Amino acid sequence: MIQKINKAGVCAPLGFLASAVNADVKGKGKDKKDLCLLYSEVPFKTAAVFTANTFKAAPLRHAMELMKQGKEFQAVLVNSGNANACTGALGIENCETLAQAVADSLGIDPSKVLTGSTGTIGVQLPVDRMVSHIETLADELDDGNSDLFAEAIMTTDTFPKQAGVLVETANGAYVVAGVTKGAGMIAPNMATMLCYITTDAMVNDKNLQAALDHAVKGSFNSITVDNDMSTNDTVFLMANGMSGIIPDMDEFKEAVATVCLELAKMIVKDGEGATKFITVNVKNASTEEDAKKCAFLIANSPLVKTMFHGEDPNWGRLMACVGASGVKADESTTDLYFEDLLYAKGGLIIDPAMEPKAAAIMKQPEISITLDLNTGSESATVYTCDLSREYIAINADYRS
Amino acid sequence: MIQKINKAGVCAPLGFLASAVNADVKGKGKDKKDLCLLYSEVPFKTAAVFTANTFKAAPLRHAMELMKQGKEFQAVLVNSGNANACTGALGIENCETLAQAVADSLGIDPSKVLTGSTGTIGVQLPVDRMVSHIETLADELDDGNSDLFAEAIMTTDTFPKQAGVLVETANGAYVVAGVTKGAGMIAPNMATMLCYITTDAMVNDKNLQAALDHAVKGSFNSITVDNDMSTNDTVFLMANGMSGIIPDMDEFKEAVATVCLELAKMIVKDGEGATKFITVNVKNASTEEDAKKCAFLIANSPLVKTMFHGEDPNWGRLMACVGASGVKADESTTDLYFEDLLYAKGGLIIDPAMEPKAAAIMKQPEISITLDLNTGSESATVYTCDLSREYIAINADYRS
Repeated sequence: MIQKINKAGVCAPLGFLASAVNADVKGKGKDKKDLCLLYSEVPFKTAAVFTANTFKAAPLRHAMELMKQGKEFQAVLVNSGNANACTGALGIENCETLAQAVADSLGIDPSKVLTGSTGTIGVQLPVDRMVSHIETLADELDDGNSDLFAEAIMTTDTFPKQAGVLVETANGAYVVAGVTKGAGMIAPNMATMLCYITTDAMVNDKNLQAALDHAVKGSFNSITVDNDMSTNDTVFLMANGMSGIIPDMDEFKEAVATVCLELAKMIVKDGEGATKFITVNVKNASTEEDAKKCAFLIANSPLVKTMFHGEDPNWGRLMACVGASGVKADESTTDLYFEDLLYAKGGLIIDPAMEPKAAAIMKQPEISITLDLNTGSESATVYTCDLSREYIAINADYRS
Repeated sequence: MIQKINKAGVCAPLGFLASAVNADVKGKGKDKKDLCLLYSEVPFKTAAVFTANTFKAAPLRHAMELMKQGKEFQAVLVNSGNANACTGALGIENCETLAQAVADSLGIDPSKVLTGSTGTIGVQLPVDRMVSHIETLADELDDGNSDLFAEAIMTTDTFPKQAGVLVETANGAYVVAGVTKGAGMIAPNMATMLCYITTDAMVNDKNLQAALDHAVKGSFNSITVDNDMSTNDTVFLMANGMSGIIPDMDEFKEAVATVCLELAKMIVKDGEGATKFITVNVKNASTEEDAKKCAFLIANSPLVKTMFHGEDPNWGRLMACVGASGVKADESTTDLYFEDLLYAKGGLIIDPAMEPKAAAIMKQPEISITLDLNTGSESATVYTCDLSREYIAINADYRS
């Protein structure tokens, strides 16, 4: 049985400890923790999903290289304020220097240390300053520090993002918990997303990667942060086995998916200025790819997002997105719903007198819309938020 | 010789007359002309480019049907305030009703009348009210009414957009002139773009279409309005031959391209809140498609656009776009220029001390950047504007 845990973070599973300090990574004297360490009392198996961006940041290339040798690690050092991206060979060297310093402090092998970075691109890390704080990070490791870790990885996020579940089995319980950071603005395709998920379940590399791939598809790859586009996007799933429980794989997959979806929704809710959480469903498309393409085009459209902010059921903008997506669709067979309200059938509004009903739905803080293409049997769901600032008033008020 | 003409509009070529009225198309009693008529004393040959959106608006489908029969027309009726899109069979009937009324007023065949619409999608046109104004439009036709026509087709545009050239040849002169409307906000992929270009040169259908296709590629298809996405985007090129001049085709193509580029740049400059005009060059890509794809990804990135508004030479965001575009590129061979200043070579910043020089360039109202991929020999140029409103301050000030 999978139960959500309140306030669970990366240290919720057995054996995971964390710490965080202010290392002034940006060099601007900000009063914010920006360097943090995650450590497991025993090595953990690791699965990972990295950005599809051709220009991957140094910590990703460093981790990918290490993972070719083996999938077992014991510590992760993460900084915010500097992405260590577009930093060439020196960027990789800096990862190695940091990993060595962490390894020295913890008495482990440097090949067991992963690093992660988020922040400005194209600037070298202040490695010496960072190294000078690593001893402190090692000393302060504690299983009560999930929140500190969550805060330290934030950049433009307005709140820390953590989630976790307890899975009870016939042989005992295990925990899956995680932390993520998105960005204040959800629309751009370069917002760096970092996510670290920990578990004390006993899972081998292959099953771990399968569970993560499944979870990412329905969560981080179904929100409009476009996590495959930043130079730094990374999701790690780390299993140290300390619960002694070998989980049922279906249940484990569901547990990881639950945590990822909750974290992904938090990223959407933290969209800069977001006032509404929007679920876009595309039903009965001819392929799953079509369904996702169409749903993403709707979810990314500034005109659609401003329409939600303006609470205006300007359904034609949604129809235009379907046509613009280039997926198999015909105006005369496309149906449109606001929540469960069938508003347009076969491409035509059913009755303009229904507008007040649709307008009432548009006033909800969470709104679901559905486009039924009636060209097949595949579906997709994408999560997004409205665009709420003054600059878009011209579009939000377009029909006034 | 091609010379730009100041304040030239659709009536600048011989024989073209226009008129405009307030027909209250939106039904909200706005004080704005929103219905206009363009007429030529003799029939004109017509070339057209329509949106690639699957769900084409009724006037486009109406025009495409008529153009299957012949490319000769004599009048165009255009309204703003209602797109006549997603309006089914009745939408087409309404085009026919309007064309009939125009034909009756002018004493021409209804098959010689084109219609065009821009505005809200999914609402039927107030045809009776529109028809009631057509007699007035016919009565008020005058070659001094270019400006009225330009104003009547505006929606969220903040200024009318007209351009024209005079082409002097050994046998006399002809004129190419045009009007366009974009939208206050440039980024969205559904801003309706309408463009009407007139000329008194004598050109046949085939050459006319070739000239228009060439011009659109380098102008309307090289700005970030994504003109192939709206349900209504249309460019018409109309040649009535009244100058008696059969132009040299290379010169004619250049004249049409000049007018289109000037109009397209005006659309970019009218981007909502735009404070900067940005030229994005991608050089030495392996294919022209790669070059354009990469340039568009940069030009459409909210993070890049906010960076321009923040006047911050945060070059890493540009590099990240190259990687995100998925085109053939390697970080270690990519060079980056602010204007002519080589700022990053082989993926690395040349010298952080150059930042003040780049920052000074970023303060210019018009800025050109160049990404040299060094993976081939193809290039592309795309025009865009910054994103300037408060809501994006969080990204513009990201490095502060």
